This record gives sequence, C-alpha cells and structure tokens, in this order.
Amino acid sequence: MPFKTIAIVGVGLIGGSVGLAVRQRKLAKRIIGIGRKPATLRKTKALGAVTETTTDLAKGVADADLIIIGTPVDWVVEFTSKAAEHAKPGAIITDVGSTKAKIVAGCERAVAEVNKSRELRKPVAFVGSHPMAGSEKAGVEFAVADLFVKRTVIVTPSAATPPAVLRTIRMFWKKLGAKLVSLSPAEHDEAVAAISHLPHLLASALAANTPAESLPLVAGGWLDTTRIAAGNIDLWEQILLANRVHTLQALARFEKVLSAFRTALEQNDPQRLRELLQAGKQLRDSVAS
Amino acid sequence: MPFKTIAIVGVGLIGGSVGLAVRQRKLAKRIIGIGRKPATLRKTKALGAVTETTTDLAKGVADADLIIIGTPVDWVVEFTSKAAEHAKPGAIITDVGSTKAKIVAGCERAVAEVNKSRELRKPVAFVGSHPMAGSEKAGVEFAVADLFVKRTVIVTPSAATPPAVLRTIRMFWKKLGAKLVSLSPAEHDEAVAAISHLPHLLASALAANTPAESLPLVAGGWLDTTRIAAGNIDLWEQILLANRVHTLQALARFEKVLSAFRTALEQNDPQRLRELLQAGKQLRDSVAS
Repeated sequence: MPFKTIAIVGVGLIGGSVGLAVRQRKLAKRIIGIGRKPATLRKTKALGAVTETTTDLAKGVADADLIIIGTPVDWVVEFTSKAAEHAKPGAIITDVGSTKAKIVAGCERAVAEVNKSRELRKPVAFVGSHPMAGSEKAGVEFAVADLFVKRTVIVTPSAATPPAVLRTIRMFWKKLGAKLVSLSPAEHDEAVAAISHLPHLLASALAANTPAESLPLVAGGWLDTTRIAAGNIDLWEQILLANRVHTLQALARFEKVLSAFRTALEQNDPQRLRELLQAGKQLRDSVAS
Repeated sequence: MPFKTIAIVGVGLIGGSVGLAVRQRKLAKRIIGIGRKPATLRKTKALGAVTETTTDLAKGVADADLIIIGTPVDWVVEFTSKAAEHAKPGAIITDVGSTKAKIVAGCERAVAEVNKSRELRKPVAFVGSHPMAGSEKAGVEFAVADLFVKRTVIVTPSAATPPAVLRTIRMFWKKLGAKLVSLSPAEHDEAVAAISHLPHLLASALAANTPAESLPLVAGGWLDTTRIAAGNIDLWEQILLANRVHTLQALARFEKVLSAFRTALEQNDPQRLRELLQAGKQLRDSVAS
C-alpha cells in the first residue's frame, strides 16, 4: 500500500468520496475521519468511507502520512496549521478547496512557521489540490468511490513545493482515477473563475430572475442552466469572495459578449446574432457531453 | 382510434417523435410524413415514425384530420397557409414552434383567408402548440416515442379559437403523455423568454466567453450551464428574433440581478452575496431535478 495512514479532516461529499476511493483501491491501511460532529462521523464510518473516526484533530493526524483537508475554503488554512502542529515528520498535507491563491499562500506560511518551531528532522509539506468533481449536492451521504474517475484534479505547486511532495500528491489523485493538471495558484484561480465561479453566479442570477408563475413551465434547458444554483450557500459565499477579483474579471468579459447579444437583438440583426450563437456553439461542441 | 389520418409537415426531432408516439399509442391509422428531402423521409419511414411519406404537401395533407407543422418557426405561417389550402373540411392544424404571438396571428389570418376563398362547409382551424420538450440535438434520428411524457405542452388559443378545436388539440397532446397548460400567445412568449430564450442566450455567451486554454478543465457545472449552447443555430436565430422584445425584457431584468451580484463582489459584502445566492437556491430548489 502506498500509504500506511491517511487522515481526512472534514468529511463531506469530497472527503467522504476520498475515503471510499482509498478504501476500494486499497491505498492505505488506516483511514481516519476527523470532524466536529459525532453524528456525521458515525455516518461516515457506517458508509465505509473511513476505518476509524475522531473529533480530536491532534490525535487523528498524528500517524498520517497524508492529510486531506476537506473543509470549506475559509477554514483550510486554520486546519492545515493545526494539522501541521501535530503531524509526524515528513507528512504531506493537501486540501480540496475550489480557490487556491489565498489558501496556498496561507497554508505555506502556516506550515513553514510550524516547521520552524517544531524543528523537525523532516519537515511537514503542503501542496494545494482542487478536484473538479462534486455537484450541487453536499454531504457525506452523497459520497461515491468513483467520484474522481476521469475527473480533472488540478494541483497547484508553488516555487516552495518540494518535487517529491508534488509527485506523491499527483500519484495519489491518479490512483483515485483522476486526470492531473498542474497550475500555479494564480493560474488556477483565473481559470476556475471562468469555468466554475462565473457559471455559478449566472445560474443563481438566472434562477432568481425566473417569475414564480413560469416555474411550472420550465423544461430541460432551464433545468440544466440553473442546476448549480442549488449548491450549498455557505460554500459558494466563501468561494466567490475568496476568488472575487478573478470572478469580477470573468464577469466583465462575459458582459461584453452579453452586450453584443443585446445589441444584435435590439437591432434585429440576424447576421450578427448568428455569429454570436455560432461562437457559443463552436466552443460548446468542442467539449464532449 | 381518435384520428384516421395525421399529417406531419417537417420531420425533425419533434415531428419524428410525434409520429413515433402516435404510432405506439395507436392514435391514428395513417401517419403521413411530409418533407422536402427524400433521404430524410426515407429515414423517418425506416424509424417507424410514419406509415407513408411524400414531398407533395397538397397530397400529403388532403386526407388528414390533424396536421402538425413541425418546421422551424420562420416557416410555420407559410406551411400552415399551404396546408389549409389543401386540407379537408374541418381539419385542425397546429404547430410546435417555440414562439407563438407572431405565428398564431399569422396562421389565424392565413387560415381565415383560405376558409373565405374555399367556402368550406366546415372551416379549417389553427391553434398553436409548444411542446416544452426537445434538446440541443436536432434531427429525426434523435426522435423518441416518449419525448412528450410528463413534459409540458403549452397550447395558445386566441379569442378566435373554437372550443371544440382547443379540446381536440389538448386531448391529442394529453394522449402523448404531456401535461397541458393553456396560455394566450403573448403570455406564452413572455414566459418562455424567461425560462428558455434568455437561458439559451446566457448559455451561448458563457460558452463563447470561455478561454480556450481552460476548456480541458471544465467540469459538471460548466457542462450543465452551457449545454443548450450546442443547439441548432438556424432554429435559435429564428426563435430569438421572433421573440426578441420579450427576450430583451427578460435580459434587462436579469442584468439587474447580475449587477447586484457584481456590487456584492466589488464591495466584498458576504451578507448581500448570501442573500443573492439564497434567492437563486430557493427558486431552484422549488423545482425537481
């Protein structure tokens, strides 16, 4: 087995799915689920996503070779810092957050401080991950072992990331079935603003904008376009604020295209409307399903 | 059987699915597929969607009790007019177009003129329909017999629609498994601008706005939100222009919500962002899947 012990801090959809996948693929002997709520931990254990559970972070991470921080983005730095304080020498910490620049900067700073104060012979390391998987459904009850299969996982090393640590994290996600992409934290945040955070904002605005009396009429197009608006408010508030600068930039670009559509409609211009629809179709057709 | 003969003018996804559904449910003995392209007609016959085919509209509609105009919206009035000229007394014509005000006004005028000139003992009648079914895939090869099952079909009677005609059309769609809603043509166009035409425009703009280098990273959210952007350009150009006034009104309302999101991000305002996300989630959660 590539790992003896993996600790998962925060067992929701992603953390739980990591646990199930690690177990199914026999990547670690012990999988320790760490959380605040005993009821959630019991559920996680019952689902077979972990081999043991604890509410005590210090104890839970002590033996782990690999620690996955599965919490919402606002808490990743704090839990990474706490995990680093109690981790064994050479342990690797990663997260699964949807934004990376703030998280990676914060976690690297926190881990470096801990390494300095603990004077470990082999330092603890952090490298950021973002599995592009999940859904509008949150909670460990939706966890599945194949959540990462054929999905993209973006890892975001910085200049400070030791190459061996990066290799281990890439190998880990690859063994869960994922396709790996490496980007800098800033490149990551810019890309996901366009392909994830802006779409969420539009889906939410579109849903909110629908007159209540028309809701009984909605069909496939509306259902698809607004689906992610059902996502967890707490998570998305944190994500959009953490990546607000890039999201605002993506929104500004989007509004130019939207404005071109408006003008084409106002001027009743079939040629221009066609060009705009064609540009959208061409991009969409270039991606499968 | 409720009908002896049904004629379908234009056999694409919707027309073909009507044919398959009518056959499976034994609603008519003869189902005549009418089109311009012999190859498409052969394919439609091979799929079992019709019992006979012809490129001659006059001959094809002559015996039909019910005539479905399945063409793109720009051609509905012309084909309704031609069908009315050759239809038998008392025949009912309907269409499946995604916009209704222009189509219903044009078809009612055309049919009234034909009725006047033909001096039929029982006039030909038109009533508009819009099955809220279909997908980004066009073409009879995607036709399925259960396309209308549990889907909404909006029928758009006007003051001129004879009640018996409306009853027959409602009964027809109901027998294909649909849920029926009656709206005036103007009410229809306003409603679908918000739930179908604006979403299409947004999906298209969002897809077009995606940087090419980020396409390999897209996941479920982007795929859902942009799916309809792959729709047929010819059809959507016609739909958006036919309903451009209502679509522009829906866009203007949407832009207010979008602007509120922009301000919340610019001002880094978690409380306001939360309210906006909550409004979108609440609307979306009120609709199943």
